[in-house]
Amino acid sequence: MAKALQLAAKGTYSAHPNPRVGCVITLNSHIIASGWHKRAGEPHAEIDALNSLPAGGAKGSTVYVTLEPCSHHGRTPPCSGALIAAGVKRVVIAMADPNPLVAGKGIKYLQAAGIEVISGVLETEAQALNLGFIKRMCEGLPYIRCKLAMSIDGATAMENGESQWITSTAARVDVHKLRAKSAAIITGIGTVLADDPALNVRLTQAQLPEITEQKIPPLRVLLDSQLQIPLAAQLLHTQGKVIIVHAAGVAIDQQRALKEKGIELWEVESDNSGKINLTVVLKKLAQAEVNEVLVEAGATLAGAFLAEHLIDELIIYTAPILMGSQTRPAFSTPQWTSMTNKVTLKIADWRQVGDDWRLIAYPTYK
Amino acid sequence: MAKALQLAAKGTYSAHPNPRVGCVITLNSHIIASGWHKRAGEPHAEIDALNSLPAGGAKGSTVYVTLEPCSHHGRTPPCSGALIAAGVKRVVIAMADPNPLVAGKGIKYLQAAGIEVISGVLETEAQALNLGFIKRMCEGLPYIRCKLAMSIDGATAMENGESQWITSTAARVDVHKLRAKSAAIITGIGTVLADDPALNVRLTQAQLPEITEQKIPPLRVLLDSQLQIPLAAQLLHTQGKVIIVHAAGVAIDQQRALKEKGIELWEVESDNSGKINLTVVLKKLAQAEVNEVLVEAGATLAGAFLAEHLIDELIIYTAPILMGSQTRPAFSTPQWTSMTNKVTLKIADWRQVGDDWRLIAYPTYK
Repeated sequence: MAKALQLAAKGTYSAHPNPRVGCVITLNSHIIASGWHKRAGEPHAEIDALNSLPAGGAKGSTVYVTLEPCSHHGRTPPCSGALIAAGVKRVVIAMADPNPLVAGKGIKYLQAAGIEVISGVLETEAQALNLGFIKRMCEGLPYIRCKLAMSIDGATAMENGESQWITSTAARVDVHKLRAKSAAIITGIGTVLADDPALNVRLTQAQLPEITEQKIPPLRVLLDSQLQIPLAAQLLHTQGKVIIVHAAGVAIDQQRALKEKGIELWEVESDNSGKINLTVVLKKLAQAEVNEVLVEAGATLAGAFLAEHLIDELIIYTAPILMGSQTRPAFSTPQWTSMTNKVTLKIADWRQVGDDWRLIAYPTYK
Repeated sequence: MAKALQLAAKGTYSAHPNPRVGCVITLNSHIIASGWHKRAGEPHAEIDALNSLPAGGAKGSTVYVTLEPCSHHGRTPPCSGALIAAGVKRVVIAMADPNPLVAGKGIKYLQAAGIEVISGVLETEAQALNLGFIKRMCEGLPYIRCKLAMSIDGATAMENGESQWITSTAARVDVHKLRAKSAAIITGIGTVLADDPALNVRLTQAQLPEITEQKIPPLRVLLDSQLQIPLAAQLLHTQGKVIIVHAAGVAIDQQRALKEKGIELWEVESDNSGKINLTVVLKKLAQAEVNEVLVEAGATLAGAFLAEHLIDELIIYTAPILMGSQTRPAFSTPQWTSMTNKVTLKIADWRQVGDDWRLIAYPTYK
């Protein structure tokens, strides 16, 4: 199963919107085949493994697969049927299908055909590979990572917006890997107006060998309630799809100009101050099969995500510098006036990346 | 020498204003005696070691000592003379006397008596034990540590001053150890008015076994230019000496009341805004034989120390929480408006202490 998990991880940058799945087939305690799911429309991991065997080669074998084999026709025929047809003897599963409506159906289908099924083997490790897929299936929302670059004293920019570059090249390469595994990147109009970022993945094959498998550049989602984006913005002139989310009835001419550039516009409800409803945006992204979102934004938008308890995972790159008090914070939270508002973090990892330190932490909300 | 350094470290909480020094004496490659300097007025490490031998017992021996033996009469007679009188054959020294005016005199004195002298063995490790003593001898200033407790997003308090407790009990015990090894603790009137701290060492013997050697509680120094301290402040009603530094000609009645309580007052020059000249205060502390200072202050005073490039070492306790933007920063630096003002840190250590993370770092000033 550990080997199957390693194979599943090869799909990190390419499998979405499907889950990352790996499969190993053994006969008499020897590995005879292995496979993984490369991308949507291509064979699932079990089929990828079976395909490498001659006809009848899987008869009497044990199949280790990181996710319950499917029992329904999607873009490809169901894997459970293929395993039964191949005459396998035993199927070991790391985790059940996360969709509560279908979980266990694949297992029952296999068992009904007389196949022994063991499940829950390295389940936590398997879940960790597919946090976005699981959350989308169970909650109808994508998994939200929020990335920040700051000084040790918590500054993300000088008051005048100056921020390039707080962190080192190594940290910035690491951010591009985060982008590469995300289905969508969300930013705010403040960041576009200040920094004019492209928000695309810029990595050489040496920096990320798996990048060749990444055929779909991440969707870039701009929250721009008043449609203030300049038509010359880099975001609009780099490869990959862009969705701009705006409030109702704003800047009709700008809407037309953006549509002519092939930009998708989403009109989403906003409050009296023009702030777009973030949960609505995230639900729409989940409906568009987005599993994992990376938020790369300034203090205002990052603060809104935090204050609404929408961040699942924080990735903070801390540069070994002090920037002082005439600076912008990481999270703008005007409504937090007491320490009772504080959010506690569960720290998963804190290590050096180049000259900087990268923290991975999970907020726990009360 | 490694053993001698371990012995020297036993004086961490008690030797000041003298340096921490350890000594090991060997004969025919066997350790025959060892010693360390416990506190001012008591035997230096070499004498402490010699004292454990019978008369003539050190004849022909090799002496390992972490600091060049003294050649002058201080509170005790010179150690070089005692080593010569004891008939030792060889002296191995980690570091020379840091005072440039006397460095090498002890060595020459030993050599003139026909003793072989080797120096510079584990020199860096020996220096690390006596950063304060060395800085005072060489620059006439104490070594300045600045301690902070903050959230991951760099907040040290809510805007209204609420800050108890950002960090965990384990971190607070660690702070008391920092206090215990410091000769003086500096704070500002803002902290006294907000938190009314005692700033004394509150440790049980289980928390710090060496505490029994610590006879002198750290001097507490309050920067209070306008003498606003309430006479009921805890600082004035806990054991240990207090010095209050104030601007010229302020609050004559308050001066009298404080003197009646046995508080020492230092009138120090201040600028037009009433801000006391920090360098003058530090020079006066060095003249009072203070080797190591711990700054425990709010953003204003900590920011002044940082902006004037006076901090030698930063100790930051980071709690795994986010406090948002309606908060006070670590360092108030109103004059820093561009990233060119930033201070780069050399990170020495970053580890978990209880639930918090403790960073030890050295600012590098341009």
